[in-house]
Amino acid sequence: MRPSSPAMDAEIGTVHGVLDHGFIRVVDYMGNDASVVQAARVSYGEGTKTALQDRGLLRYLMRHGHTSPFEMCEIKLHVKLPIFVARQWVRHRTASINEVSARYSTLPHECYTPDPADCAFQSTDNKQGRGAPMSPHNAGVTRQEMQHAYRASKTSHDLMTGRNTSRELARIVQPVAQYTEWYWSIDLHNLFHFLALRMHPHAQLEIRRYAEVISEITRAWVPLSWEAWRDYRLNAERLSGPQAAVIRRICDGEHLTRGDTTLSRREWSQVVDLVGPMLRG
Amino acid sequence: MRPSSPAMDAEIGTVHGVLDHGFIRVVDYMGNDASVVQAARVSYGEGTKTALQDRGLLRYLMRHGHTSPFEMCEIKLHVKLPIFVARQWVRHRTASINEVSARYSTLPHECYTPDPADCAFQSTDNKQGRGAPMSPHNAGVTRQEMQHAYRASKTSHDLMTGRNTSRELARIVQPVAQYTEWYWSIDLHNLFHFLALRMHPHAQLEIRRYAEVISEITRAWVPLSWEAWRDYRLNAERLSGPQAAVIRRICDGEHLTRGDTTLSRREWSQVVDLVGPMLRG
Amino acid sequence: MRPSSPAMDAEIGTVHGVLDHGFIRVVDYMGNDASVVQAARVSYGEGTKTALQDRGLLRYLMRHGHTSPFEMCEIKLHVKLPIFVARQWVRHRTASINEVSARYSTLPHECYTPDPADCAFQSTDNKQGRGAPMSPHNAGVTRQEMQHAYRASKTSHDLMTGRNTSRELARIVQPVAQYTEWYWSIDLHNLFHFLALRMHPHAQLEIRRYAEVISEITRAWVPLSWEAWRDYRLNAERLSGPQAAVIRRICDGEHLTRGDTTLSRREWSQVVDLVGPMLRG
Amino acid sequence: MRPSSPAMDAEIGTVHGVLDHGFIRVVDYMGNDASVVQAARVSYGEGTKTALQDRGLLRYLMRHGHTSPFEMCEIKLHVKLPIFVARQWVRHRTASINEVSARYSTLPHECYTPDPADCAFQSTDNKQGRGAPMSPHNAGVTRQEMQHAYRASKTSHDLMTGRNTSRELARIVQPVAQYTEWYWSIDLHNLFHFLALRMHPHAQLEIRRYAEVISEITRAWVPLSWEAWRDYRLNAERLSGPQAAVIRRICDGEHLTRGDTTLSRREWSQVVDLVGPMLRG
Repeated sequence: MRPSSPAMDAEIGTVHGVLDHGFIRVVDYMGNDASVVQAARVSYGEGTKTALQDRGLLRYLMRHGHTSPFEMCEIKLHVKLPIFVARQWVRHRTASINEVSARYSTLPHECYTPDPADCAFQSTDNKQGRGAPMSPHNAGVTRQEMQHAYRASKTSHDLMTGRNTSRELARIVQPVAQYTEWYWSIDLHNLFHFLALRMHPHAQLEIRRYAEVISEITRAWVPLSWEAWRDYRLNAERLSGPQAAVIRRICDGEHLTRGDTTLSRREWSQVVDLVGPMLRG
Repeated sequence: MRPSSPAMDAEIGTVHGVLDHGFIRVVDYMGNDASVVQAARVSYGEGTKTALQDRGLLRYLMRHGHTSPFEMCEIKLHVKLPIFVARQWVRHRTASINEVSARYSTLPHECYTPDPADCAFQSTDNKQGRGAPMSPHNAGVTRQEMQHAYRASKTSHDLMTGRNTSRELARIVQPVAQYTEWYWSIDLHNLFHFLALRMHPHAQLEIRRYAEVISEITRAWVPLSWEAWRDYRLNAERLSGPQAAVIRRICDGEHLTRGDTTLSRREWSQVVDLVGPMLRG
Repeated sequence: MRPSSPAMDAEIGTVHGVLDHGFIRVVDYMGNDASVVQAARVSYGEGTKTALQDRGLLRYLMRHGHTSPFEMCEIKLHVKLPIFVARQWVRHRTASINEVSARYSTLPHECYTPDPADCAFQSTDNKQGRGAPMSPHNAGVTRQEMQHAYRASKTSHDLMTGRNTSRELARIVQPVAQYTEWYWSIDLHNLFHFLALRMHPHAQLEIRRYAEVISEITRAWVPLSWEAWRDYRLNAERLSGPQAAVIRRICDGEHLTRGDTTLSRREWSQVVDLVGPMLRG
Repeated sequence: MRPSSPAMDAEIGTVHGVLDHGFIRVVDYMGNDASVVQAARVSYGEGTKTALQDRGLLRYLMRHGHTSPFEMCEIKLHVKLPIFVARQWVRHRTASINEVSARYSTLPHECYTPDPADCAFQSTDNKQGRGAPMSPHNAGVTRQEMQHAYRASKTSHDLMTGRNTSRELARIVQPVAQYTEWYWSIDLHNLFHFLALRMHPHAQLEIRRYAEVISEITRAWVPLSWEAWRDYRLNAERLSGPQAAVIRRICDGEHLTRGDTTLSRREWSQVVDLVGPMLRG
């Protein structure tokens, strides 16, 4: 019998809606928490069996960056997503993709319009992000402007295909908000890397919505691996060498301000977040 | 002194226009024909020096699929290209990309409109391709329909950014014909694979235009490797086992029609192209 | 229910002996022939359903080098193999490996000694291969010489570990004939590439033995994909551009010898093999 | 003019000895610190020019894990190294290798014998490492035991090749301490990853010696990128979510022992190292 995960067997066929027209569903998978453990025990030998129980071994692997055992699990998803999200997604090259071809088939005219609550002004302190949320009125205007562009694109596209223009040309007027679909297969190590980057607050909201659904699926699939990843990767804080040195000086009783260090503003504020009470004392 | 290629040193800085607003220019490179030879001689030992001159060795490597020495050369290009071309391009995962981010900066509103000579109707025998070319009148109408959609997208986009909508949202109305830019770095082996697929008649015309420019750059850079690739990859014909068996039967004097074989229509027609006169005899 | 392959479910747990102490066994797998078809239909759209039955579609994909749907299947093997075979195997980088660590555990002293029938003299025409087989006597001497070296290595190793030398140092005297073990996970596209290279007559006999077992496992797992691969890859012949041109000239009635062409000796002999009777005529 | 690095131009041709018979020398390279900056500015747009000087931008990229600009530099090394080191090295799959083939050529009989100062007993607290160093006498005995095995292997090998046994068979008695050679090409991002893992105290001493030489070469090549990597990767400390929570509790004035937390022994000791004085207070 090949290894299985009852939670994933139950998951197959379930369609999770994402954004206004998108979805994620599990098509297939290979392996489970025990598969990671099994591969690690091949590497480290039988001795590990007595020394470490499965959960401890998985946490040890994650803590020490021993990533190859996590490559022994695989997941395959069917995803429907806007093209601009797809373009961020494919930056993760260690994965396999089969996408619908707009040269072969005409895609249904479905474009992403953000929910009013997700409409926002340009951030003032983050060049790449969203800042203050829009009022319902402003959000409504924004959504209308988007849909105006989508309609114009659809009209042009339909006029062209109505005159039998080749599909591969007619589709170039479609907006990057247009939905596409693909099958996506990735191993668990690379999936965790994808999730850490795409659940990060700096990732665009829309791809975060997909990453969050996949994270919950992964949690059901490999709960012990997922927990180790959450503790040692997702919620980890990395201190640079200079930051760690500053923290040691603080703990040695020095009273420091940023000017006494070489830290940048952002680096200093991360230190303050971590050991704030000592600084206040 | 590190290895160099005079033709490539002269090439750096030259901008090759592609399509209506695109370009390709060489930013940097590593290695030359001699670098491939040098790496191969490491593998096969000194004996190869006398047995095979450089050109012969390069042809031997290519003919026998010994691809790793070609990975020892690298090229870095700056490319401006429509998003729909970029989406085909990134299927080649063994390469490095740094693309302009439409979340950080507003891209100039430049969209691809095909030259009238490149406008065509849907192919009747190839689901993914272009068929009969359009008359100048039809091409003109098609181009107007495209530009109508582009203007509507620009209007919506500018209205949104005018009201300070976040860039990452406003840009989603832009069409896939919108130009983007990137730096692309790839080794010579993977470049040859890219070129073979993207110069193929089934590749979309627009990406072929880029591939053809890159092929000429590569020819100047590594002329002996390029020639070997052209002869043994680009212009190679692959005969399936069943096709080769049929050709042997024909050469043994059998008079065959497709019905006497298990070949598909396409496989048979490739055989006819190759040994046509014999079949007629 | 996730997709399954009854032949592979039956395969799990079976240990296939390879060489004198090696083995291959299937640990897990994902997908089957229908999974490849399903992924291809996502790309090419529903229209393909009526046009091509599954078998025809798989053959079409293989013939045209549409490889990504084959990446949608995955296989995981447990393999025991000599280190010199392992070193050839890892050249295939698009795969995941968990190997036993000789720093953590002492490997059992098991080294490969070729069967007498596999002992051979240096080839005279192939710098990298075996030529004439050895007589039973010569093979026996060869085997004794190998085992003498293995015993000396074991003696040194055991003396060192007996004095508590660190494992990571003591093991460096072990020969590359020493067996190691690993878990190996790879997708079907990359597996087919591995098999084509490692079943080739130029591959070393010992890795060919492994590849042949894996090929039979793959045939049971995905029979239609395997058959397409055999016909269009394994048994395919590639004609270079110059070779195809020569064949056309022959078929046009020219009487040619190699001197009338630019073909190398090897290229010419491949042409002779293919259209020999015409040349004789 | 393509980008260059004067320090690297001077480096080409220099042979750095490593271990008893090994070496590293730079064969070629592409790019410099400015190439990383240039690629990053493509992504983030012109605005970054005024906001951040080059050094600051490189540190920002490294701190935030924006790794793709570092892929825009490439280095090619010629390395001579023992096979057991080569086997650890190839775990890094995103690199290109051309290795001398022991099937084509007979390798010179050169095997690694550790310097007496590097001979050590098995570690008692680290299953995979070296512990107490050996006395000169013990080291001498260890070295003799190794060389005894090497001589026996050489004798067997030479007897076999003397009787014209095929090279690919005769070489299987050679120990993993045997030196091999290769050309190795890798981009700067993946090189930094290699260095971080292979300079780590848990890496085997012998591969660390190579990594340290490469680190110094890299420092000369791209000094600003290297410095950013040292501060934000090599010397970074990663705190898990649970560790960061414990540190916050300590800073809030709680008096904790390990029993008050869920940390493992190792996790707790990392916290003690960081904020030790507070715990003692």
